Order: sequence, then C-alpha cells, then structure tokens
Amino acid sequence: MTEVTLDVATEIIEASENHVGESDVPPMCIAVMDEGGNLVGFHRMDGALLASIDIAQNKAYSAVSLKLDTETIHEASQPGESLYGIGETNDGRIITFGGGLPLEDDEGTVVGGIGVSGGSVEEDVEVAHAGLEAFENG
Amino acid sequence: MTEVTLDVATEIIEASENHVGESDVPPMCIAVMDEGGNLVGFHRMDGALLASIDIAQNKAYSAVSLKLDTETIHEASQPGESLYGIGETNDGRIITFGGGLPLEDDEGTVVGGIGVSGGSVEEDVEVAHAGLEAFENG
Amino acid sequence: MTEVTLDVATEIIEASENHVGESDVPPMCIAVMDEGGNLVGFHRMDGALLASIDIAQNKAYSAVSLKLDTETIHEASQPGESLYGIGETNDGRIITFGGGLPLEDDEGTVVGGIGVSGGSVEEDVEVAHAGLEAFENG
Amino acid sequence: MTEVTLDVATEIIEASENHVGESDVPPMCIAVMDEGGNLVGFHRMDGALLASIDIAQNKAYSAVSLKLDTETIHEASQPGESLYGIGETNDGRIITFGGGLPLEDDEGTVVGGIGVSGGSVEEDVEVAHAGLEAFENG
Repeated sequence: MTEVTLDVATEIIEASENHVGESDVPPMCIAVMDEGGNLVGFHRMDGALLASIDIAQNKAYSAVSLKLDTETIHEASQPGESLYGIGETNDGRIITFGGGLPLEDDEGTVVGGIGVSGGSVEEDVEVAHAGLEAFENG
Repeated sequence: MTEVTLDVATEIIEASENHVGESDVPPMCIAVMDEGGNLVGFHRMDGALLASIDIAQNKAYSAVSLKLDTETIHEASQPGESLYGIGETNDGRIITFGGGLPLEDDEGTVVGGIGVSGGSVEEDVEVAHAGLEAFENG
Repeated sequence: MTEVTLDVATEIIEASENHVGESDVPPMCIAVMDEGGNLVGFHRMDGALLASIDIAQNKAYSAVSLKLDTETIHEASQPGESLYGIGETNDGRIITFGGGLPLEDDEGTVVGGIGVSGGSVEEDVEVAHAGLEAFENG
Repeated sequence: MTEVTLDVATEIIEASENHVGESDVPPMCIAVMDEGGNLVGFHRMDGALLASIDIAQNKAYSAVSLKLDTETIHEASQPGESLYGIGETNDGRIITFGGGLPLEDDEGTVVGGIGVSGGSVEEDVEVAHAGLEAFENG
C-alpha cells in the first residue's frame, strides 16, 4: 500500500500551490491526511481565508473517512437524499461541498485525503485536482 | 493597513447603539473582531436576547473568516447551493443569515468584522450597516 | 436589586481601563457579566494577550456562578483542598486563579461579575478591583 | 512588523525537521501560527505520535496567545503557583509543558508562535529552538 508520508503530502501541497500560482484562483488552505484521517501536512497560503483553516482539514477528513469526494457528499446530503444530515455527525467535521478528494493507490484503496479551501467551490475543486494529479503521477 | 483597535471597535459599537436608540429596532448585541478573528469589543444592550451574545460574535467571525457578509453566506448555504452545510463547519461558528459584515480598509483588505444580533435579520443588517458606516467615515 | 446594565458594565470597564492607563500594568481584557452569567460588555485593550479574551470572560463567569472571587477559588482548588478539580467542571469555564470578582449590591446579593486578564495575577486582581470600586461607588 | 507568511513558516518547519534529521530525537509534529493565533503551516514527520498533531498546534497557540514559552507556563501552572489551572481555560488549548515558543520580531513584538511535539519535553524544546533560530536569522 502507498503511504501518505510527509514527502508525499508535501508534493501534493506544492502541486496545489503551484496551480494557484499559475492560475487566477485566490490563495488557498491545503490539508493532507493519511489513511487514519490524521493530518500530515497543512499550508495556509498568504491571504487565504481564516475559515478555510478548519474547512480544508475537514474536507480532507471527510474524503478519507467516507471514502468519497466531497462533491458527491454535497449531492447525497441534500434534503431528501440518502445522506441528509451527515454534516452534523462527527462533530461537524463532514463537509458537504466540493474541495475534498480521497487519495487512492493503484489498487483503488483509499490511503489518504486532500482538502482545499479558499475560493469558490469550483476553484477549490480545481486546486484539489491539481494536488491529486501530482499524487497519482508521483 | 487599518487596524481594528479598541478605539475603532468602540466607535463602531457606539454608532450601532445610537442607530438602535434613534430607530424602532429592538436592543442588540454588537461584536467587533480584528483581522485574526479575535474579539476586540462586545456590548449587549439592555434587554437584548441572550442567544444573540454568541450569534453576534459568530457573525463577526463569519464575516472575517470568509471575507463575506453573512447575507451572501445565507444564499450560498441553501439546499442545493454551493456552500450548503457551511453552517456546521468551524464548530458551528459560521452563521448563515444576515447581520455580519466584513470591515475593509481603503484598499479593500478585510481588517475585521462586525456582527449584530437581536432583532429580525433585516433589523440586524440595518444596525450592522450603521456600524460599518461609522468605520468607513471614521 | 441593582442590575448590571450596559451602562453599569461600561462604567466598570472604563474604570478598569483608566487604571491600566494610569499605572504600569500591561493592556487587559475586561469582561462584565450579569447575574445570569451572561456577557454584558467586553473590551480588549490594544496589545492584550489573545488568551485573555476567553480567560477574562471565564473569570467573570466563575465569580458569578460560584459567588466567589477567583483568588478564593485558587486556594480551594489546590490538590487536597475542598474544590480540587473544579477547574475541569463547567466545560473548563471555572478559572482557578485571581482576576475574577463578584459584583454585589448593597444587600450582598451577587448581581454580576467582572473578569480581568492580561498581566500577572496580581496585576489582573488590581485592575479588577479598580472596576469593582467604580461599581460600588457608581 | 514582521509577518509570519507561509514562506517564513516553511523555513521554520524545515529548520526544525533538519535538526531532527541531524540528531537523535524522534520524529516530530511542527506547527507555526501567526500573530492572530491562526495556523500557517503544519508538518507531521513520518512516525510522529498522533497525539502530537493537536499538542504541537496547541503549543503554538499557547505561545502566541500568552506571549510566553510553554516552559514558563509549565512552572506557573503547578499546584499552588499563580497560573494553576490555566491548562483548562481556553477549551484546553493552553499547553503546560515545554515545546512552544513565541516568535518575536526585532522590536520584541510577538508576531507568531511555533509548537513542537513528538519526543520528550527536552527534545521538543530543542527542536523548537532550532526553528526559532532559523526565524531569527531568516
């Protein structure tokens, strides 16, 4: 199994930061967790929203702990949908909007998660995917 | 950068209180935070709702930490909208209805926030704007 | 019964601030609560410790809720003493060192509390007493 | 005033990690906060204790919010000493043993904090000082 070591986390975070630097999105908070849902690395880019410190970490936690990206959780947590109310469980740590992605190894096992927060949901998702890509090519 | 000193906070709170005194709105709780999301000043006017003690502070926190007024958060947090569920992140400190406003300096940098609670949302917003105006003219 | 209105709280806070201004103690956080243990007024003087935001409020809460000054709680909470462990109750809101004082009316009824934090315990106590004096002469 | 940007935080964290690599101490969690007590950067070195994720952050918070190193807090929080019980205030975020250091600019203003956890207190303190040294020479 691939492990989300500090080197791996740093690589993911750097790729995310580079993507921010090369594009038009605002500064971000980026969090990487291991398969235990425990924080490995976190960076707050200068000027990133303070609320994003917690949200980025909680997105990573959501992705690891539910083995789902948080856009999927967004859909499933709407009124009437299967996971309606999931945002209140786990001390509010489950985030119900995009920007959290599970990290999967070659066999599809979830080995960690990345969470990005700081812009619109679309921007967060975009930056998270830049991090994920670095992980998959890493 | 303008700093939200105690003098600045006091001026904002006083302007808000004066607006309450001159109009028909109920007594309010008024909270002012600095750019780090830390409380600088808080007043509970006589008779203001007890729940408003926390709500006013959390509105100020929401405005600082997301750099958004809480009316905007209200819209974005509705079922199906992009930030649905944001009210459960950050230990429930993000308020999803009006009455919280970011304080911006001349260059548009968010340097703090004001949160007002005690009446209807419209009333809270009105009083918060009275505080904001004092800040902008201060 | 004397009530701790916003005017009363403001007077207490101002007297505390004036004492800081006229003496050698560092900037303080000053909190005033009513008889229900609910915050009425709070000021953080420029440069006051961030930890003091919570500590000042918790000192005021401790003084109201136990009808004791927090120096007395300090003594009673030492290992082997009668209130050993009190600091862990009430979600950690009981403070076990000086700087919190109950506000009593002429008949000795506790009608509120003041909490001061920002310097050494001795300094906090000194500033709290300046606030109390204003209350008693007010 | 010097600001604890992400670059500054990264430099501090790297210096701490290098010190671990060159010495005999176990892997560490290293957290850096800004003057508002908000997290800027965090790294968990491979194999570091899970409990250290929170402890490192709380040590940084303690150092910023009390403008004290946590060894000093350790002494002052012993039974009978002036700050006995401080570890329960602020939702338990004040750490009462070494490994947290305030970051001061050239004028002695506290502009942030570093928190290190993972080994014995002596080891944590040693690594925190390596980070501080990088900050001061940076």
